[in-house]
Amino acid sequence: MPWLTDGDISIFESGAILLHLGERSETLMPPDPRGRSEVLEWLFAAFNSVEMASLPWALLQFSGETDDTPGWKRLDAFLTVRLQRMEPVLAGREWLAGRFSIADIGMADVLRLVDRFGGLAEYPACRSYVARATGRHAFIKAHADQMAHFAAAD
Amino acid sequence: MPWLTDGDISIFESGAILLHLGERSETLMPPDPRGRSEVLEWLFAAFNSVEMASLPWALLQFSGETDDTPGWKRLDAFLTVRLQRMEPVLAGREWLAGRFSIADIGMADVLRLVDRFGGLAEYPACRSYVARATGRHAFIKAHADQMAHFAAAD
Repeated sequence: MPWLTDGDISIFESGAILLHLGERSETLMPPDPRGRSEVLEWLFAAFNSVEMASLPWALLQFSGETDDTPGWKRLDAFLTVRLQRMEPVLAGREWLAGRFSIADIGMADVLRLVDRFGGLAEYPACRSYVARATGRHAFIKAHADQMAHFAAAD
Repeated sequence: MPWLTDGDISIFESGAILLHLGERSETLMPPDPRGRSEVLEWLFAAFNSVEMASLPWALLQFSGETDDTPGWKRLDAFLTVRLQRMEPVLAGREWLAGRFSIADIGMADVLRLVDRFGGLAEYPACRSYVARATGRHAFIKAHADQMAHFAAAD
């Protein structure tokens, strides 16, 4: 479970943690009302609209329960609608809200899980976006740090 | 799709809209860092942690695809874990973050959909919370206004 401690404030929920970091760094979220508002809509789009379809989809992919049942087909279609909306958005821009922000940290991580199960095969712009986000130096370092942390905990 | 226009700013995503309103009303979100942070974690908990399980669950309930497949059972269990975490939280407090806030507008609406399909039968504190939130004068008025809007659109 993601958890952040900053001074005497302790925060759970990935979205709330990202927002907390964004409010402390103009690199991660512009402070002007319009720019900030755009980042916030995409942050919620990632963790609410997209992940509510992608995570259950990935859960069933992970457990191999992607059978021919109407239930699975409905979940798959539920995700397809969201990817079909994201594809033209990401084909037209490098990052979601003008420049790189906490919204991209959220959205790239949500789409990364779909990509892991081959779910972005028909969405080249989504795939490029995930590659772009995970190719950033900060992502590579954070990912390596996390893997080292897990390895040390074993 | 939820959409808010406020002056020259136009916002999509329920979570971003609620946050926008919360930042303009101390009644809906306390302005102090700690109180605000608590509201934000529960707002994300509603729209990310809980709704990513409850909405796919409700989607399959709505379409009657709650069969004996392992996929459905996994989704049902995915929601159960979240309700089992919310139950003691809501048994111990009237509202999520000290007093009524945008987090309760989000969480009560997310749980309301589960309740509609009988999913809160074993969670009395969650059920009371939904009843408390939907019994507020502001909810009753907003709900009536929306129904009138839909009726006028017919």
